[in-house]
Amino acid sequence: MELLVELLNITTGGNRIALISEATASHLGVHSSDRIKITYKGQAMIAIANLAEHYPNDRIGLFEETETALSGIKNGEFVQVQLAPLPESLFNIRSKLHGERLREQDINAIVKDVVERHLSTVEIAGFLTALSIHGLSTGETEALSRAMITTGRTIDFGAGPILDKHSVGGIPGDKTSMMVVPIVAAAGFTIPKTSSRAITSPAGTSDRVETLCPVNFGIDEIKEIVKKTGGCLVWGGALDLAPADDLFIQVEYPLGIDPMLLPSILSKKKAMGSTHVVIDIPTGMGAKIKTRQEAYTLASDFVDLGRRLGLKIQCALTFGDQPLGCSIGPALEAQEALNTLMGAGSPDLREKAISLSSMLLGMVGAENPRAMAEEIVDSGRAAKKLREIIEAQGGNPNIKPEEIPVGPKHAAFRSDSAGKVLWLSTDDIVRIARVAGAPKEKGAGVVLHAKLGESVRKGGVLFEVYAERASKLEAALELAGQLKPIALSTKPEERMVLDTVPEKATHEKAFMLDR
Amino acid sequence: MELLVELLNITTGGNRIALISEATASHLGVHSSDRIKITYKGQAMIAIANLAEHYPNDRIGLFEETETALSGIKNGEFVQVQLAPLPESLFNIRSKLHGERLREQDINAIVKDVVERHLSTVEIAGFLTALSIHGLSTGETEALSRAMITTGRTIDFGAGPILDKHSVGGIPGDKTSMMVVPIVAAAGFTIPKTSSRAITSPAGTSDRVETLCPVNFGIDEIKEIVKKTGGCLVWGGALDLAPADDLFIQVEYPLGIDPMLLPSILSKKKAMGSTHVVIDIPTGMGAKIKTRQEAYTLASDFVDLGRRLGLKIQCALTFGDQPLGCSIGPALEAQEALNTLMGAGSPDLREKAISLSSMLLGMVGAENPRAMAEEIVDSGRAAKKLREIIEAQGGNPNIKPEEIPVGPKHAAFRSDSAGKVLWLSTDDIVRIARVAGAPKEKGAGVVLHAKLGESVRKGGVLFEVYAERASKLEAALELAGQLKPIALSTKPEERMVLDTVPEKATHEKAFMLDR
Repeated sequence: MELLVELLNITTGGNRIALISEATASHLGVHSSDRIKITYKGQAMIAIANLAEHYPNDRIGLFEETETALSGIKNGEFVQVQLAPLPESLFNIRSKLHGERLREQDINAIVKDVVERHLSTVEIAGFLTALSIHGLSTGETEALSRAMITTGRTIDFGAGPILDKHSVGGIPGDKTSMMVVPIVAAAGFTIPKTSSRAITSPAGTSDRVETLCPVNFGIDEIKEIVKKTGGCLVWGGALDLAPADDLFIQVEYPLGIDPMLLPSILSKKKAMGSTHVVIDIPTGMGAKIKTRQEAYTLASDFVDLGRRLGLKIQCALTFGDQPLGCSIGPALEAQEALNTLMGAGSPDLREKAISLSSMLLGMVGAENPRAMAEEIVDSGRAAKKLREIIEAQGGNPNIKPEEIPVGPKHAAFRSDSAGKVLWLSTDDIVRIARVAGAPKEKGAGVVLHAKLGESVRKGGVLFEVYAERASKLEAALELAGQLKPIALSTKPEERMVLDTVPEKATHEKAFMLDR
Repeated sequence: MELLVELLNITTGGNRIALISEATASHLGVHSSDRIKITYKGQAMIAIANLAEHYPNDRIGLFEETETALSGIKNGEFVQVQLAPLPESLFNIRSKLHGERLREQDINAIVKDVVERHLSTVEIAGFLTALSIHGLSTGETEALSRAMITTGRTIDFGAGPILDKHSVGGIPGDKTSMMVVPIVAAAGFTIPKTSSRAITSPAGTSDRVETLCPVNFGIDEIKEIVKKTGGCLVWGGALDLAPADDLFIQVEYPLGIDPMLLPSILSKKKAMGSTHVVIDIPTGMGAKIKTRQEAYTLASDFVDLGRRLGLKIQCALTFGDQPLGCSIGPALEAQEALNTLMGAGSPDLREKAISLSSMLLGMVGAENPRAMAEEIVDSGRAAKKLREIIEAQGGNPNIKPEEIPVGPKHAAFRSDSAGKVLWLSTDDIVRIARVAGAPKEKGAGVVLHAKLGESVRKGGVLFEVYAERASKLEAALELAGQLKPIALSTKPEERMVLDTVPEKATHEKAFMLDR
């Protein structure tokens, strides 16, 4: 059927959708959310049909994503439109819904159709829900990882081991990557680190690094930076390393599921050419992974999948009962990372960075990796390397920690009693930092003055809140007053009740694991 | 945040969606497919946010469904926009994803949010997939049915038993409802029958009846028709009886799942005030339900759920190895139904209509219901009642079967051998009838001249194809030649191979059960 093109100049946020009238749909045999094949001057593409009760019957409305897929198309031109057959991969999805195990070619077809937008978000949601409930076999996990690599771009950093470090995230203030990358690069190895921005946290590594230098680069620029310095700290979001994953995340996020976690993380590592990877799994009350049991299961899944993909992987279960270091918020954290590399800063942060770095150095054959990592920090070579990377990424290599601009409005939150810190809610700290403006307002955040086991006098400072605007500072302090995120006690037995629940409490899961 | 309204004048096909720029979204803390609350002159509504890379930051684009929810809103006005909290019901959905059993109030919240469009199709897809995989408890099924009734309209036909008949569908040519309704109404009972149009079949009851009289009425008109005649044969699609179901079907259809089948059917019966219902479950090679085992399970689920909802239900497992009667296609089927009520027509159709009618009459206390039903048909009272209903619905009560217009283009499809009909593919017959133009072209379809076990001579007519256009007739005949939907044999042992499969065959499931 020939239809007149109307360019709607409206985006759908990613999906290829075309609008036709109900009458036209009925004529074509198309039902709501069926696929149609649009042919224009030898180009053919598949779009999902949206049906409109009142829309001219001779017309097809193309949303921007659909328009873009038909190069050169103009308003008022004609296209051929017909009902497209259901994609084969939809039958693979239906098989998975019924609990069947998928073969490699089934999974390839699904991932290919996800990337080519032949599957609707409803169909992807059905697939991921089925995966989440039925679970994935190791073969399926491997096939998904490989399919995600094949359908994306890869970067070749040349010969030699390519190292990487990844955290599944979950504790605020974790600025370890900003230290591991320069330590490992200063040891002479290649560590091209890509990271994400914060979604539900007060800062992602890219948000932190961005207070020092740009993070948004193309593939060729990244290769140049890594060639010069051995490392980089760049944003991975626009590199198209595993485009299927962006679509998977859109669906997993509202549903609070993450069956694609492992394929997602490791496909991107493979796409970066990584050969040796340390995965950090923060474990504890304040982390996303709450128990050691969960952490060990996840760790062995990582190691197994890594082996299948030809990646050497070691996992670190790290202390996750409280934030790492003292600062939470992009600029405050960048300050603390730089300080810690320069010899001041937080001992827990230094310890973690040196431990993870020495795991990586040990994996590639260093004889006394811990001593090597300590020496690299203590000699100032790590700080020097970070400055080289900052310079290569277009920042000021001579910046002093105190020159990193933090929120001009700040105030202390004080204790109304004396005692030792018995527990500390990382979720509450995250909320306070976000209300203060983080991660969008980079100077905003929280600086802890008391961590687990530390003594506080009555009226002593528990934490400071930083903000860029007075109204946000006030809102954050008010929230802090309600939440009371830090509990003190002189004797633990005085405070055995952590919280009270009137009825079935619905806690929003502190979703998702970083990937 | 205050944003300038742009009315997009584009429908999304049902979802309430608003367009904002990525920068504005980031400012609001909104991620793709998060919900936003839009406030306008004291009205507040929730929409799903679509993020556009390039869209003015001071603007919000309202799709038609969103515009309609804000009465009086105009281009260029201002609305207040903020991030809406996740609906509580989303946490209930997440619980179901993890295999938990939902309580009545959890289910109420989900269905309410589905109807109020607070849940996205991705979230509904996750919910229905989880239901499909984990299954529903009887309590959950009951709660879903009740919630679907509560969120929709109901019709009160007054005191006395209200009878109904429903088929889960699946065999072509099943025009039983057009006979059961007049038989039962002629016996003095109330039977307000709503039906659907064809989705994947060549004719739904509404398509058939529409060749005799209009079927699209409002609730008050339906009450008037039923008051006058005791029955009706109307389209149920626009009555808003269980609005949640329309949204569920949109998601179930592509995924090929139907966890909501029972709540969907019985909530609509309850909404119509039904007290006694016969459910027809065609069972056999040519039906959607292939085995007696499946059919018995489904039947007992219907009876159980009916009891919980205060509905008396009997199920009939009916012969489903071939089409019912001889005609397939809206006008051809209306002709056959009228003929059969008038004493000619098809014996299998007559038998089925009388059996199902007498089940209903028996349920409300008739002493010899089968004899009663037969007498009602043989005396001509059933035909007379159908004509009363046709008249009450605005059609010509005196129409003769041969006056119902059928496709002017027709041709016979002949056998190239002699023998008895060994098997007959209903799926193929459906495809041929649809290619001929059914259900859209009401005169199109297929008339079988040979059914299971009947003898055909070489060159004898197997079936005729009817169409409104020569090109469609040709296409249907060509398809018939490829498919050869009727297989003959003189001795069954000559044709033990039904089909051959080169490798894993993907058959499109003849979805969905009618509801």
